[in-house]
Amino acid sequence: MVGDVSPQPPFSAIPADLRTLADYERRAEAHLMPEVWRHIQEGAGREITLSENRAAFDRIGLLPRAMARLDGSTEIELFGRRHASPILLAPLAYQRLAHPEGELACVRASTALDTGMVVSTLSSMPLEDIAAAAHAIARDLGKAPAPLWFQLYLQPEREHSLQLVRRAEAAGYEAIVLTVDAALKPAGIRLPPGVDAVNLAGMPRPTQTSVPGGRILLGTPLSDAAPGWDDLAWLREATRLPILVKGLLLGEDAARAVDEGADALIVSNHGGRVLDGLPSPVDLIQTVAEATQGRVPLLLDGGVRMGTDVVKALALGASAVLIGRPQMHALAVAGMPGIAHMIHLLRTELEAAMAQLGCPNRALLGPDRLVALGR
Amino acid sequence: MVGDVSPQPPFSAIPADLRTLADYERRAEAHLMPEVWRHIQEGAGREITLSENRAAFDRIGLLPRAMARLDGSTEIELFGRRHASPILLAPLAYQRLAHPEGELACVRASTALDTGMVVSTLSSMPLEDIAAAAHAIARDLGKAPAPLWFQLYLQPEREHSLQLVRRAEAAGYEAIVLTVDAALKPAGIRLPPGVDAVNLAGMPRPTQTSVPGGRILLGTPLSDAAPGWDDLAWLREATRLPILVKGLLLGEDAARAVDEGADALIVSNHGGRVLDGLPSPVDLIQTVAEATQGRVPLLLDGGVRMGTDVVKALALGASAVLIGRPQMHALAVAGMPGIAHMIHLLRTELEAAMAQLGCPNRALLGPDRLVALGR
Amino acid sequence: MVGDVSPQPPFSAIPADLRTLADYERRAEAHLMPEVWRHIQEGAGREITLSENRAAFDRIGLLPRAMARLDGSTEIELFGRRHASPILLAPLAYQRLAHPEGELACVRASTALDTGMVVSTLSSMPLEDIAAAAHAIARDLGKAPAPLWFQLYLQPEREHSLQLVRRAEAAGYEAIVLTVDAALKPAGIRLPPGVDAVNLAGMPRPTQTSVPGGRILLGTPLSDAAPGWDDLAWLREATRLPILVKGLLLGEDAARAVDEGADALIVSNHGGRVLDGLPSPVDLIQTVAEATQGRVPLLLDGGVRMGTDVVKALALGASAVLIGRPQMHALAVAGMPGIAHMIHLLRTELEAAMAQLGCPNRALLGPDRLVALGR
Amino acid sequence: MVGDVSPQPPFSAIPADLRTLADYERRAEAHLMPEVWRHIQEGAGREITLSENRAAFDRIGLLPRAMARLDGSTEIELFGRRHASPILLAPLAYQRLAHPEGELACVRASTALDTGMVVSTLSSMPLEDIAAAAHAIARDLGKAPAPLWFQLYLQPEREHSLQLVRRAEAAGYEAIVLTVDAALKPAGIRLPPGVDAVNLAGMPRPTQTSVPGGRILLGTPLSDAAPGWDDLAWLREATRLPILVKGLLLGEDAARAVDEGADALIVSNHGGRVLDGLPSPVDLIQTVAEATQGRVPLLLDGGVRMGTDVVKALALGASAVLIGRPQMHALAVAGMPGIAHMIHLLRTELEAAMAQLGCPNRALLGPDRLVALGR
Repeated sequence: MVGDVSPQPPFSAIPADLRTLADYERRAEAHLMPEVWRHIQEGAGREITLSENRAAFDRIGLLPRAMARLDGSTEIELFGRRHASPILLAPLAYQRLAHPEGELACVRASTALDTGMVVSTLSSMPLEDIAAAAHAIARDLGKAPAPLWFQLYLQPEREHSLQLVRRAEAAGYEAIVLTVDAALKPAGIRLPPGVDAVNLAGMPRPTQTSVPGGRILLGTPLSDAAPGWDDLAWLREATRLPILVKGLLLGEDAARAVDEGADALIVSNHGGRVLDGLPSPVDLIQTVAEATQGRVPLLLDGGVRMGTDVVKALALGASAVLIGRPQMHALAVAGMPGIAHMIHLLRTELEAAMAQLGCPNRALLGPDRLVALGR
Repeated sequence: MVGDVSPQPPFSAIPADLRTLADYERRAEAHLMPEVWRHIQEGAGREITLSENRAAFDRIGLLPRAMARLDGSTEIELFGRRHASPILLAPLAYQRLAHPEGELACVRASTALDTGMVVSTLSSMPLEDIAAAAHAIARDLGKAPAPLWFQLYLQPEREHSLQLVRRAEAAGYEAIVLTVDAALKPAGIRLPPGVDAVNLAGMPRPTQTSVPGGRILLGTPLSDAAPGWDDLAWLREATRLPILVKGLLLGEDAARAVDEGADALIVSNHGGRVLDGLPSPVDLIQTVAEATQGRVPLLLDGGVRMGTDVVKALALGASAVLIGRPQMHALAVAGMPGIAHMIHLLRTELEAAMAQLGCPNRALLGPDRLVALGR
Repeated sequence: MVGDVSPQPPFSAIPADLRTLADYERRAEAHLMPEVWRHIQEGAGREITLSENRAAFDRIGLLPRAMARLDGSTEIELFGRRHASPILLAPLAYQRLAHPEGELACVRASTALDTGMVVSTLSSMPLEDIAAAAHAIARDLGKAPAPLWFQLYLQPEREHSLQLVRRAEAAGYEAIVLTVDAALKPAGIRLPPGVDAVNLAGMPRPTQTSVPGGRILLGTPLSDAAPGWDDLAWLREATRLPILVKGLLLGEDAARAVDEGADALIVSNHGGRVLDGLPSPVDLIQTVAEATQGRVPLLLDGGVRMGTDVVKALALGASAVLIGRPQMHALAVAGMPGIAHMIHLLRTELEAAMAQLGCPNRALLGPDRLVALGR
Repeated sequence: MVGDVSPQPPFSAIPADLRTLADYERRAEAHLMPEVWRHIQEGAGREITLSENRAAFDRIGLLPRAMARLDGSTEIELFGRRHASPILLAPLAYQRLAHPEGELACVRASTALDTGMVVSTLSSMPLEDIAAAAHAIARDLGKAPAPLWFQLYLQPEREHSLQLVRRAEAAGYEAIVLTVDAALKPAGIRLPPGVDAVNLAGMPRPTQTSVPGGRILLGTPLSDAAPGWDDLAWLREATRLPILVKGLLLGEDAARAVDEGADALIVSNHGGRVLDGLPSPVDLIQTVAEATQGRVPLLLDGGVRMGTDVVKALALGASAVLIGRPQMHALAVAGMPGIAHMIHLLRTELEAAMAQLGCPNRALLGPDRLVALGR
């Protein structure tokens, strides 16, 4: 709010009063340029979807089970690989907006905590450098790297989309996350110097122009370039990596995506950033689960901020959740240690919630542990 | 709020941070006299209907359809004329309250964008001048003028109502919009110098007087002068232009209006300005559609501020929507370019929403794309 | 809020910006001692009932009927006497807290507007003086006095209750309103000099005392003195005036009160001042109407602030409503003319609402004109 | 909020404007160190459960019964002992955080008012001293001491749990309250000098440690130490005192606890301090009552702040309620007299509410007196 005050640099040690993701969020504003803070936090339109993403979790109550045995674990397996918990880092554009180390800080923390990370097409560090950083720190820690996936925005020309896929394969990414809901997203933030979509260097970018009286979006090259079912079929042919389709909300679309070869789905409304009025993923995942009948794992993002949110998503059918904005908060406040701490807090909360519910394993968590609050 | 500070003059170029109708609304207060701002924004009573007009839209969620083909258009046809989109400018009184060019600024913008406009009986520029401005700019742009309709408030004497209709016909207006819900509306703003109901010059105005212990409204000349079914029948005889009846909310009244010769209906609660407690048009249009069985087009106004609102209205049965208060906001902030920009923003949002829903044509938009939010 | 600033004296002329009862309420605080303002406005407990009294009206939507004939009237008849509208002044204690003329200002205004008034046992002017003022102004205006009723709080000794009834009869009061819901009401305001329960001069007052470890309310003389069915039977024998029982909410109690001789009922929760958690009268009056089957007129108070509230109460079965706190607001702001203006505003709003609903007579107003808002 | 301002000392006489528990709460902040105030008031997570504990009461409306006889009493009997009312003091940790006399102030007040008190394992005065203070003041007042119960947190070693039980038996405590819902509660406040868990002197405390990549809670010694059904069976064998199990919410767990020997249950979510998202006890007690079929008394805590709350709990099946945070508020504001006043206020409100409902005895209070507010 105050004119020319620079944001605070990130802390080098984590302040003791940071005990929840909400604490990081509250603290982050002071560590970010105002326009970056607004860009991170904002949602489309009147932000109804943005607030539904939280409200939908908050409306769900939890039913405890007393005095149960608590020997269990939060580990999951996806595409043959172990994840320490059902929590992954969602793909985010331009993480250097929050911290000079950007995606490198994230991947070092996620690797240290055996947590999967999805790297965005719009990462502000080259996808190869991010993978290299993951391998380096895994080597230092004497462990296997955590799973790394690559999020793909289709480019106007398929040859450029293919280049991205091949680079991801070469760098050791283990899955492709095809985002299908953001082709016509409104323009975002004006990037400051030193922050750019480095993976797309040399590729043409989709642009929107319109003349008065002419077409605007529908029936233009821009809408022609939006992802279609043929694009999924093409991608299915183009790579042997598992493909996750991200940005579906309804059972019908989900079933078709599986029919067309998707190996998993990420139920998502893009964090409320694309179309205001979309319902929350947590309100829809049960119908997606019914439509897909367990044929593929379902992941979910949007509004996850507490361990109890993870429990609710799992109880409704999710195999795992992805964490978006909180990455930016933790990055801005404390860089790599902040990300690690944020993941650890969320996992601790998840375990405490599972313990209170008397469900020390994911298999015990079902909709019978949930109830609508406030009737 | 501050005593003798004059409102800001309108901008000559549109500031870059105006990207939504809400931005215009936020900005408009600084460009208006405080009493004008309050007059524009206010609703009747406790403003429950005013806020319902928004809340009803906000309660409706949208169900997307992924990866659909997006070749389509928003064009519609009404009374044999093409409209670039299902968005029209609603009739508003005294637009010079917001900008010295008043209705002329609006009609120039709407003509440039192929957008229909409804001119009010209470316009602050002569209805003939408004029509002339439309034709002049259409000629300059080398295109046909957009449709112009005339909104009629019945006058105490039918001869004066007839004079207004004849003048509208002569000036090239293509339809008459008969407002039936505002006869007993509370008195409005005290008009500043230079703003007046110029179309009514020389005609007597309805007035309300009461003596203690005497009658107030019911059974007085004022209530006798309120529009009745006989007035619609008279108007039906008096003109060959299409007649739209504006201000109905219920199916029974709607069906009767069609029986009595209405060519279209505008489902409206007068922007929440007349009777507090009326439900929102968007909550009622489905029952109106059932009652009228597609015999005439249904339009709707009240609370439309975003492209997603237009989508919701269409999905529930509206053929088009009308935009009211946002005209005053855009006029105050940036005059004619403001109106043009406002229309363009709304159309862009509409197309983006249709794309996200996978419904690039109006015919694909039905109630199956809607869901109640927050359950 | 500000220490030793005296409240403003009442206006001698009504400011032009007072156009609703809400305007009076907003303005009133400046004309009252802070502790009086708080006393007038407050409700019991967490003020849930107080806010329900408004919220229940606000949840009810109105369904208009277009282009109907509007020759009608709001007149009603109760106990053989004409009331100009279904609006009466509710009994209020100590009206001199708001204005030096207290109840005299009210009765002069209500008489001038042919509006019934209920005088409280706790009036701050003698009940005889109030009746005399009503007759004097009626004579001056050359009209019959409006109906005056006397509200009775039972006194610890029946002989004192009987004295009050006999004085009311002698002074020309036309009905007795027996309040049955306030015996154990928490203590109220400390009365300033010159304000007192003058009707009770010389009578003992009920008091509450308790010793630690002893009884508090139940089984004490205080609870013994609370009104019982035997008291109603006694009163029925003691007077030939019509008896209204005030403070019932449920059908069962209502039916019994009619069986025991009540000539009318006032459905009321005492303005939310007695027990927090009671529902609003407007939410319950339909069940009371069903239980009493039209055997007696039903009146209602609590939260009535607008003409649309009156319409809603009538549509649900009330014959009339009573206005409480707004009397204090209007008194404080502008004394007798304030009360007259307040009544006139409410009647005008009532007629405008009836006109919009196409129901110019009370008989046309039924629950078919109502709908739940916000679904 | 203000840096180094010390909190106000407690009042020696009770200010006249303290008339409700809410008044105490408002006043208490000024009498407490900021971190203590926050610690008392806070709930887990987003405090949804904390606010549900109030909201659930506020959603319940009360149905009055007019003109009923009011000879009755609020006395109850539990485990053969008389309680003056169905209101007890809940176990709270570290009451010296609020007042130097801590638990001694509470027990003196509760004894004087014939009100049961539950002393916490984490009391800041030795459990023996608290019992001695109760007997001393009872002797001074010439009455029997009110019932004293001991709340047990299981210790890592059973021998230490047993020591606590034996000390409670020896000191004259009349029941053991086994808390089963707080084993994995997040760490609390850092205790100031002079405040400690004196009852646990010399015993090892459970601690939580985790190494990155290692286990966090599930499957650790910490979760092994959480109370299990075997612990209840052990306790049942270990003492002849009645056992209450505190911290159950669901019928299934409640029925099993009774099967395993519990003599009463306290339906509780630990004041919203443990797991955010748990429903309110008052929303669940009916299902617990159905599951346990009257085999044991049910108590309830969480959010009780007014006499009407007590009435609602009783009407839904509770035999009594426990008061938590308000103890800290009253202690901080006025020490022992504050506690006594607080209890007296609540009992007075309870009796007034029972009178308004026409239910002067607990047996008359059933769910037929309740209704959902706001529909």
